[in-house]
Amino acid sequence: MRTSIATVCLSGTLEEKLHACAEAGFDGVEIFEQDLLVSPLSPEEVRALADRLGLTLDLYQPFRDFDGVAEDVLVENLRRAEAKFQVMNRLGIDTILVCSNVATATIDDDEVMASQLRRLGDLAARYGVRIAYEALAWGRFVNTYGRAWRIVQLADHPHVGTCLDSFHILSRGDDPSGIEDIDPEKIFFVQLADAPVLSMDILSWSRHYRVFPGQGGFDLAAFLVHLVRSGYTGPVSLEIFNDVFRQSNVQRTAVDALRSLQWLQNRSGHRIANALAAGAAPLPEPHMELTQLPVVEPPSGIDFVELRTDEPDAVAEVLSQLGFAFRGQHRRKAVQLWTQGAARVVINGQRARATEPSISALAFQVADARTGYERALELKARPVARHNTADEEELHAVRAPDGTEVFFAAAGTEPAWTREFGPGAIPPSGASSTGPSPTGTAAQAAPGTEGTASGVVPGELIESVDHVNLAQPWQAFDEAVLFYESVLRLTTRPGTEVPSPAGLIRSQVVRTGDGAVRLALNLVPHALDADGTARSYPEHVGFATRDIVAVAGRAKAAGMDFLPVPANYYEDLAARFRIPEEELGLLRRLGLLYDEDDDGAFLHFYTETIGQVFFEVVERRGGYDGYGAPNAPVRLAAQFERSRRGGERT
Amino acid sequence: MRTSIATVCLSGTLEEKLHACAEAGFDGVEIFEQDLLVSPLSPEEVRALADRLGLTLDLYQPFRDFDGVAEDVLVENLRRAEAKFQVMNRLGIDTILVCSNVATATIDDDEVMASQLRRLGDLAARYGVRIAYEALAWGRFVNTYGRAWRIVQLADHPHVGTCLDSFHILSRGDDPSGIEDIDPEKIFFVQLADAPVLSMDILSWSRHYRVFPGQGGFDLAAFLVHLVRSGYTGPVSLEIFNDVFRQSNVQRTAVDALRSLQWLQNRSGHRIANALAAGAAPLPEPHMELTQLPVVEPPSGIDFVELRTDEPDAVAEVLSQLGFAFRGQHRRKAVQLWTQGAARVVINGQRARATEPSISALAFQVADARTGYERALELKARPVARHNTADEEELHAVRAPDGTEVFFAAAGTEPAWTREFGPGAIPPSGASSTGPSPTGTAAQAAPGTEGTASGVVPGELIESVDHVNLAQPWQAFDEAVLFYESVLRLTTRPGTEVPSPAGLIRSQVVRTGDGAVRLALNLVPHALDADGTARSYPEHVGFATRDIVAVAGRAKAAGMDFLPVPANYYEDLAARFRIPEEELGLLRRLGLLYDEDDDGAFLHFYTETIGQVFFEVVERRGGYDGYGAPNAPVRLAAQFERSRRGGERT
Repeated sequence: MRTSIATVCLSGTLEEKLHACAEAGFDGVEIFEQDLLVSPLSPEEVRALADRLGLTLDLYQPFRDFDGVAEDVLVENLRRAEAKFQVMNRLGIDTILVCSNVATATIDDDEVMASQLRRLGDLAARYGVRIAYEALAWGRFVNTYGRAWRIVQLADHPHVGTCLDSFHILSRGDDPSGIEDIDPEKIFFVQLADAPVLSMDILSWSRHYRVFPGQGGFDLAAFLVHLVRSGYTGPVSLEIFNDVFRQSNVQRTAVDALRSLQWLQNRSGHRIANALAAGAAPLPEPHMELTQLPVVEPPSGIDFVELRTDEPDAVAEVLSQLGFAFRGQHRRKAVQLWTQGAARVVINGQRARATEPSISALAFQVADARTGYERALELKARPVARHNTADEEELHAVRAPDGTEVFFAAAGTEPAWTREFGPGAIPPSGASSTGPSPTGTAAQAAPGTEGTASGVVPGELIESVDHVNLAQPWQAFDEAVLFYESVLRLTTRPGTEVPSPAGLIRSQVVRTGDGAVRLALNLVPHALDADGTARSYPEHVGFATRDIVAVAGRAKAAGMDFLPVPANYYEDLAARFRIPEEELGLLRRLGLLYDEDDDGAFLHFYTETIGQVFFEVVERRGGYDGYGAPNAPVRLAAQFERSRRGGERT
Repeated sequence: MRTSIATVCLSGTLEEKLHACAEAGFDGVEIFEQDLLVSPLSPEEVRALADRLGLTLDLYQPFRDFDGVAEDVLVENLRRAEAKFQVMNRLGIDTILVCSNVATATIDDDEVMASQLRRLGDLAARYGVRIAYEALAWGRFVNTYGRAWRIVQLADHPHVGTCLDSFHILSRGDDPSGIEDIDPEKIFFVQLADAPVLSMDILSWSRHYRVFPGQGGFDLAAFLVHLVRSGYTGPVSLEIFNDVFRQSNVQRTAVDALRSLQWLQNRSGHRIANALAAGAAPLPEPHMELTQLPVVEPPSGIDFVELRTDEPDAVAEVLSQLGFAFRGQHRRKAVQLWTQGAARVVINGQRARATEPSISALAFQVADARTGYERALELKARPVARHNTADEEELHAVRAPDGTEVFFAAAGTEPAWTREFGPGAIPPSGASSTGPSPTGTAAQAAPGTEGTASGVVPGELIESVDHVNLAQPWQAFDEAVLFYESVLRLTTRPGTEVPSPAGLIRSQVVRTGDGAVRLALNLVPHALDADGTARSYPEHVGFATRDIVAVAGRAKAAGMDFLPVPANYYEDLAARFRIPEEELGLLRRLGLLYDEDDDGAFLHFYTETIGQVFFEVVERRGGYDGYGAPNAPVRLAAQFERSRRGGERT
């Protein structure tokens, strides 16, 4: 598939946009007229630059309000068009997008529009230009691709064809299967855009909220399948108007955009293969080839969570209070390993000077780590440079949009890399105060937990990482969703919004179907984002247990600082749910939060924040599959209150 | 009118919210339940705090999904309600908001709902609580205030009344005049919210886009008139869900909120007075008293624009090239005055250490400066401290939401304060290089322009300040619109959006009806806002002339740096408009931009940016009343390109 993108999708100058598109790996671009008008580059210079960068210039757009007008307006429109054809000749672009009329149309008659397009076609032919006529969803008279195609058929001119745009078709709830019935030679151009499912007027929706394929709610994979089945073989181009993309780093947005097309091709390709295997009609010849990515399965679990800091003591203390065992230092690096059940936490002191604890890396267990990594690179993920010695386990990683390192690890209960940690290594700085204390909690009392590679330890109440909650900067939110979907094959759940004292936090869960991997991506309010560390939004790791009462009791006995829960919360809990008085007393005494739905119940608690990170322990009862969203405001308010009072853990 | 506000409108902790409401001058607050639930303060502590602050606690809210349910659900709901009544007793709140059911209702029957509310009323009576039943616009069965009122009448219980919310009524396009027919004793509460006119689903619109009265598109003044005519005399409360307010400084938002109610009372009061004068039926007794503001007229012009910098030379040079005359230093301060026609620019070097030139103050000519200032103070505008000696003209100023100082000046062609500038003062630093050069432009050639207080100078091609364009930080946009409306009685025009290479800029004009004062308020994209000075959005002053060709020619001859206009722009201009070749050549040669509409034409040019400010010169031909919006992207792209290349005026 030939990939293209409209320059209006991106921020920056026209020159910067072209460079970014070429670097990301696009085959071509659409020149959005205004980008040319405001550029100091002449059309000839733009053409030469694109040439140098190896980009084709696929479309000039948009030309508005041409058709369905009175004769005097038409004459003026033809004059206007001719000036554009001259510019196109200088640019070396042979196709122009003509949108159905939204403003000046007065004649609602297919024959009239067809004859007017025929006159435009005659003029275009003199300049070697092709007219791609597109129905805007809010066109005055022409607003469906079916009608635009009828008018093109009536025009019956070799220089007049149609342009299909997924947004204009799907936003109206129109059925895209009719695309297969269009003569592929007459599809002059195709534009793709996704969009979140919103109920608002289509024009505003289109102008502000379009997103790249895979970031919204449209079934673009089906759309592309119809396109392949039509026999269309031209470029497939992104045309996204999005308030955030227009402000974001141009190189990153271009990469995000290309990734969306790779991921889309992959999904459509699978659908076609499945349909063919199930006996569907063969594809026409010739047809568009869809590039496929290496095949991977979703991860089977989280291998480890890495926190980075040069002051590991406070984190180590809380982990110890939660029942984690210190498994030793890395034999060569300033890195500690703490484990409990299948939950592994690495505290990395390298390149961590004056760094408050924060989540720096996540490792995912996959069937084939090498293929997972290679697929990520094909999806333009940035590799993370790692230094290994020959006898060490080689782990590959890429960088997620928010900078978190994403590792691909082999599946298994006792990963090979853990053997690099052990008693032979240098003891952790201050280990005596931060390692398991002698005050005898269950896990710490178990024999052989320190610096060994033994299996399950008695008293290991925490079983695994339940979820990881990551703060996303405003530019990275949609990009992150697509990244985790395409690179790790996680799937998204409907988003939610959580009120905090500093604004609403938009939250989106990406996860595996079985819940073995769950990430909550949180778009942090502007105020928290802008006001520096004191008020920035801490991230957290949620650990799963089947006995939260025991975990909380043990942590309390070990002197752990819990995030406080207000008394008002428990009074409301009693009003909302029928919880026996005794159990309510237990929740209150241990500072546990509670939620329930039709499938089960959820108990959880939070630790105080250490630097930029805190921990949560959760117990899921029955089929409860959420994250205690009604309780999140309690946590956010307590954290806000803490940060207002100047510093955590006072 | 007793003023109140829901705590959900504001950011911060419950304690911070209460303090901010009291400081702003509210009489009371509504406690939004979640704010209490997440607070470490007990109900008794909240009550005591409100008491100390002199705030009444007017409403507890919301209680959801009570009515129209099966008996077993009702029993559960009554249990839930009783727990809330107990909390209310501890808070000392006597009224609870019960919203019409959106989720659990199954019985669409007024009699059933009335009988269920009656049972709730019986329970409430035992706690001395009143039920204020409100129709949510998206209620399952009950979604109009008319139906809610019918059900309340059917319930016929002394503890059951209705709550009116302007958003739920006006968002549905419902007619609020029926409010006058409701028994005022049965209106237990009133909530006000405005909203911009958006076409989207009502729930999202309500949850994210509500604004304070006067900041949106609803006719709340009419709504309040109906309320006064109903005989309601209880509190009128703001309930605004707004994504920006939830993130903004709590004190500022509270002030903004109270100002909106003052301004609303003022407008409604005038409508009532006019209606009574025109013979409308007298008001019921008793009725709500609406506080009125001192009466002022909109300003008749801009008295001066002040730029602040300790390096005035670059600004002075450009002003000189534009034909401004140096009128001398202030006799006592490091302040220069430059004038041309009625355009006066003050360059203030005080408190300006290491300050790049920026717009620091605007002075507006008003009929009664003292009353204008006092009205601003009543509207909670922050006064600006000024130091005057006894023989100097006393000018009063307040601070606009973005920090700009707003002066109230007497109307007149030669303001008295200009007499404090003159040749007796210290000469400007570097005056020889920055004052009028000897290269003989029209204004500079005119005799007696330096350091005199003479009248109109020959060659004064610029007549006045046409408009001032101010960048607004993201938190201050809606606040600024209301500030200029209420304090200066400017009126808003429909907003627009302008694409820049760093994102869309939302622009809103506030002006006098006659165009004597025009301010363009621009909401700057996040990216520009966050990335520091190099990419921040410069502001500008637009000067009006009747001969832009002469102004541009003179400036060119004087060596002024124009913001460059790309050749592509002129080619598009030729395609869009029928401009004679000769005139097009003139535009191109002088670097002028052009726009036209049905009423006339607009010619303008921009100077290069100096620090954070630049100048525009505009010529309006015929009845053209806009600002050349189609050309703004050209300017923004050129400025972006300049800032990318590292610094202006290189």
